[in-house]
Amino acid sequence: MSLPETTIPEPKRRRGRGDGSIPASKRTPNYRQLRSPFPHMNVFSDDEIAAMHDTALRILEELGIKVLLPEARKIYAQGGARVDETTQMVYIGRDIVEAGLASAPKSIACMAGARHRDVLLELGCLTFQPGGSAPHVTDRERGRRPGSGRDFRDLVQLTHHFDVFQMISALTEPQDIATNVRHYFTTQAQLELTDKFPFLYARGTPQTMDNFEMVRDFRGLSDAEFAANPHCYTIINTNSPRTLDIPMAQGVIDFARHGQMPIITPFTLMGAMAPITVAGAITLSHAEVLASIALHQLVRPGAPVCYGTFTSNVDMKSGAPALGTPTHFQASLAAGQMARFLGLPWRSAAGSASNVNDAQAANENQMGLWGCLLAGASVIIHSAGWLEGGLTFSYEKLIADVEVLNMVAELCAGNKAGSDEIGFETAIAEVAPSGHFFATTQTLARYTTEFYEPVVHDYANFGTWTERGAKDASTRATKVWQDILAADKRPVTDPARREALQAFIDKRTGEGGAPPES
Amino acid sequence: MSLPETTIPEPKRRRGRGDGSIPASKRTPNYRQLRSPFPHMNVFSDDEIAAMHDTALRILEELGIKVLLPEARKIYAQGGARVDETTQMVYIGRDIVEAGLASAPKSIACMAGARHRDVLLELGCLTFQPGGSAPHVTDRERGRRPGSGRDFRDLVQLTHHFDVFQMISALTEPQDIATNVRHYFTTQAQLELTDKFPFLYARGTPQTMDNFEMVRDFRGLSDAEFAANPHCYTIINTNSPRTLDIPMAQGVIDFARHGQMPIITPFTLMGAMAPITVAGAITLSHAEVLASIALHQLVRPGAPVCYGTFTSNVDMKSGAPALGTPTHFQASLAAGQMARFLGLPWRSAAGSASNVNDAQAANENQMGLWGCLLAGASVIIHSAGWLEGGLTFSYEKLIADVEVLNMVAELCAGNKAGSDEIGFETAIAEVAPSGHFFATTQTLARYTTEFYEPVVHDYANFGTWTERGAKDASTRATKVWQDILAADKRPVTDPARREALQAFIDKRTGEGGAPPES
Repeated sequence: MSLPETTIPEPKRRRGRGDGSIPASKRTPNYRQLRSPFPHMNVFSDDEIAAMHDTALRILEELGIKVLLPEARKIYAQGGARVDETTQMVYIGRDIVEAGLASAPKSIACMAGARHRDVLLELGCLTFQPGGSAPHVTDRERGRRPGSGRDFRDLVQLTHHFDVFQMISALTEPQDIATNVRHYFTTQAQLELTDKFPFLYARGTPQTMDNFEMVRDFRGLSDAEFAANPHCYTIINTNSPRTLDIPMAQGVIDFARHGQMPIITPFTLMGAMAPITVAGAITLSHAEVLASIALHQLVRPGAPVCYGTFTSNVDMKSGAPALGTPTHFQASLAAGQMARFLGLPWRSAAGSASNVNDAQAANENQMGLWGCLLAGASVIIHSAGWLEGGLTFSYEKLIADVEVLNMVAELCAGNKAGSDEIGFETAIAEVAPSGHFFATTQTLARYTTEFYEPVVHDYANFGTWTERGAKDASTRATKVWQDILAADKRPVTDPARREALQAFIDKRTGEGGAPPES
Repeated sequence: MSLPETTIPEPKRRRGRGDGSIPASKRTPNYRQLRSPFPHMNVFSDDEIAAMHDTALRILEELGIKVLLPEARKIYAQGGARVDETTQMVYIGRDIVEAGLASAPKSIACMAGARHRDVLLELGCLTFQPGGSAPHVTDRERGRRPGSGRDFRDLVQLTHHFDVFQMISALTEPQDIATNVRHYFTTQAQLELTDKFPFLYARGTPQTMDNFEMVRDFRGLSDAEFAANPHCYTIINTNSPRTLDIPMAQGVIDFARHGQMPIITPFTLMGAMAPITVAGAITLSHAEVLASIALHQLVRPGAPVCYGTFTSNVDMKSGAPALGTPTHFQASLAAGQMARFLGLPWRSAAGSASNVNDAQAANENQMGLWGCLLAGASVIIHSAGWLEGGLTFSYEKLIADVEVLNMVAELCAGNKAGSDEIGFETAIAEVAPSGHFFATTQTLARYTTEFYEPVVHDYANFGTWTERGAKDASTRATKVWQDILAADKRPVTDPARREALQAFIDKRTGEGGAPPES
């Protein structure tokens, strides 16, 4: 499958650092539709992966999964699963799982608000999301605080600004917005402030139907057009071990029925809600994904669904989540092998457990990121902004991590070594021994476009850096996000549709909104 | 080739964080002799690499290299190269280069002060060195200052402490020690404070002969034993472009004659002393390494020599070195392809250009590190501690980077997915839906050994972390290095040899030492 033909507009020239002496960079990278250039790394043998898959099937057949939603149990039963209504346990035969895997699409064309923002999800693609679902936010000006509506909108705008994010995530929870109308707020923000592929929570059918209606109408789609491709997605977290709760099961069903995309992601912390080993944790996670995909495909065979994993270890001293560890890294590798075993696009996660935007935060996020990259993840969530294992979204950490994501995106472009690049005549032969290359033919032709231009990294020497206030990367990041928000750049949207959206929200709010289900 | 048989003593149990409630980790990792588990990533096609190699040969034949040392020009001439004594230019035919590549060993057994510290260098091996040659040092207690003798000894002890460093590097320049006796100081520190593979500067034959004599006698070796394997190494930096200066050429000759190992490393900053393209810079760097290996093998065919590269870009705004950039990453990949093309062990470099141990410093170092890892580097230098592109060695940055190196070393151990690890009976079947795994048979059997125990990363939650003083990773790192230095652990060495070493140094100092040559 490929995306519809599209004319990708020229990205805006990125600003120089305004010292006046150097022409602005003319580099125009395209970070929007990336293919991974990274080799796959395996942690287990093919036989071990097959044994893990077989054990996952055995878990579903012999141990079963607890499904709290009666409608979901009914769908499983109609599909041939053995259901015990007393215990709410569902025992899923491997034939049901295998049928679900056979009908799940291997390539998914996710439709954004503009064609150049569309995202193709399949093995080999590479997309990024910032951190999701943080209850708190923090920045150097205002400190740590509960996430608010303003924060949610700010983070949508910051996500929109950086091309390297192809999808919006759940960002932060706007806790100052009442829960019965919060979904209007978050969906409106995503429709009006960005044209990237939006995230919607699955918190019960009434909210989900509201959300679908808002997206469909704002995008100007018929019901059939809306259902033909995903125009939004959600994250389905199973309740590990072996439980699918009511809103999550309802989300699987609702998103399947309407052709929108759930990403099925058990959050399995090894030693806590999953086995202490990578093999055990990924086997359990895999079983839970298979159970959810089976349900999803029973509802609507062929509907888009994405495999997901988020497995790391806890700190055995404190029980707290640890991210960016060797175990997290290996769990991503194992999940990648599982996804390739199935042939499905899949998401993995980076993130940081640090309490502050420091060297630990950077190293954890990047270590987790490389695990995802070498695992061949199609979607990497929590790739920027997370502190405290996801309890807090840091504005400055977002900027710090974007720098790394941009550099990874640069690597996707590859490089060349033709005679122009080698430059025997235009560079090497022009320079005498111990001379310099500042003025070679090759340098003059390329110096404004050859190198990546950083967002927040500073290469000034120690003296200059000290004179400028000895600001560390976190301090410098504050101005970066402030400048982006001050510019308040929004995609062009139709005023009539904005008005219609507001009218819909006002009407539904007047009717009492839709309380979340749990 | 393989290392001599060795009994690796059990590493000491690493300390817990001293909160008294949790038993100390029983994990006993072996970070000493690592094989890389990472897949190779290529940036160029095989044809492009062959074209770059061919261009490098053409550079040496047609453009030549300026060689400032008359003895070296004589050796080249005797080997068949065309030499212009007026211009000091040497034109090296590809037959000479190819003969040198044919006789250069593909596997080198580097002998340390104890057999379990020996290092095998060949493609597939993975070794780390901390940052080298920084003129300044910094730490949070004493600030930024010129490197001193005390700093050099401190950094040797810190390098010794962490098993993940298999080699000592040049660390910092002890500027308070007179240059005619500085080599006694630095060699003595490495012999007495560590039993790892030592680094010696090549600053003229008199200093090199002093150094060789100290190492040989302290290790208790005959001349023949000393010459049979490398017991120390040096770094040879060509003066890019296309110049080999007097001490560097002398170092190549002296180390070859005595069977000690030079690592030939052009430092090629793209756009400054090398072409602005990855292909051009690596082609030039490759030509300079080939010229040096040719000289080395003309002196003593089969003597150990290591291929090296350190190529990154300059910031085109300031001309300052930029490290951990996409260009740096791709240059490592290209160099790795070149080294595999030749079949030689090789070194690459990480490092940071940041002015402080912050998120930039962490992200740069780790990005550069992943470039080296995916390039299959046998030796990764500057892998910890560097700030300011190597102008300053930071005690705290050393600790921050060690955390990442340890995690990489953990990944070298791989993982398993047998039935014990999957744990269908011992873990998954033991836990009810929505239960926890803290007390499964599998968890109880593994919880003290399953996970990596961090050096400085902190997983405490925000409240606990705040109560403990809200210390960021850099602040916590101060206590880590202070505790290591306070413990002052040294390898067991023979007092008679220490006395003999001191007597040698006193005698040579009385004779005026040996001034460095340049």
